[in-house]
Amino acid sequence: MAVVEDLVRELGRLPGIGKKTAQRLAYYLLKAPPEEAKRLARALERAVDEVRPCSICGHLSGADPCEICASTRRDPNQVCVVEESPDIAAIEKSGRYHGLYHVLGGCLSPLDGIGPDDLNIAPLMERLRSGVAEMIVATNPSVEGEATATYLHRLVADVPGLRVTRPARGLPVGGDLEYADGVTIAEAFTGRREM
Amino acid sequence: MAVVEDLVRELGRLPGIGKKTAQRLAYYLLKAPPEEAKRLARALERAVDEVRPCSICGHLSGADPCEICASTRRDPNQVCVVEESPDIAAIEKSGRYHGLYHVLGGCLSPLDGIGPDDLNIAPLMERLRSGVAEMIVATNPSVEGEATATYLHRLVADVPGLRVTRPARGLPVGGDLEYADGVTIAEAFTGRREM
Repeated sequence: MAVVEDLVRELGRLPGIGKKTAQRLAYYLLKAPPEEAKRLARALERAVDEVRPCSICGHLSGADPCEICASTRRDPNQVCVVEESPDIAAIEKSGRYHGLYHVLGGCLSPLDGIGPDDLNIAPLMERLRSGVAEMIVATNPSVEGEATATYLHRLVADVPGLRVTRPARGLPVGGDLEYADGVTIAEAFTGRREM
Repeated sequence: MAVVEDLVRELGRLPGIGKKTAQRLAYYLLKAPPEEAKRLARALERAVDEVRPCSICGHLSGADPCEICASTRRDPNQVCVVEESPDIAAIEKSGRYHGLYHVLGGCLSPLDGIGPDDLNIAPLMERLRSGVAEMIVATNPSVEGEATATYLHRLVADVPGLRVTRPARGLPVGGDLEYADGVTIAEAFTGRREM
């Protein structure tokens, strides 16, 4: 049983996967055609080996620069600042935004000891100074996200000609941007307002 | 993004894992220390390569015969018949049973075209004829599980001296044995009755 138990334990380490779910998944994988579990194992290995933060925007990607930074069809005058990489997938799904992104890698949280130096802010300032028309601050609509947005707004006060906006409060307060639906995100991007 | 999307897709194939959960798991694995995802990948590969049904009882295990069949501390006079391998883990957790097992690989289900020949029944008959005192039929307390139990009961009518029992109806009717709690399973094993 050691091999099966190993797999159950490793699956059970994943967030939101309890012991029973891990066991169900393990037996599902063992009963499925071996190719299915092998494909998952390979996808995992490859992702861990190849996925790195984009050296421009910090988005997790198998390419550097990431597909979005490398695209010639995105508007380089807009930079949307998000807390984490999955937020980009959520915004992309809404189909309403066609600019570039910047991943902070979290938000300001004094209680957790996360200050400005722990976030990907210095490279953001460089990007903004190199001539960007608008920064859309799409941090989460939580207390920490708002504080981070306010901090960034003050920080860029001396960048000439930069418009700073925040997606409209169509996003549910206290929620997590990653889990918002596409329509809500689209509404929020359309109704974004000056900070 | 292709590498990340690959991983999200493969995770999303798992039962009960939707697209959002798959995305959350993928980004969790990409942000965690690489060793964590590697361990999961290795556990998967190893399980797929090494885990096989036990040639005696059909239980999925990395050893053949499985740990339970190979154990000298189990009572070889009792054989508990279950539908699937995970049912064994549930019964073992109850701590009330110390005999051997036999995995049918499902239950009779005419609507799904599953008849006696599709189940691991012939090897069970051989085991019972070689001198077993009791067969505990622990198929699920569902319509199909009951039908399978009744079928097995009739089938072994000519096996001399074999006691056939069924765990007491402490198990919730229509439920799935795999998800029952240990106490319920223990009660059901203690109160098992003649068929």
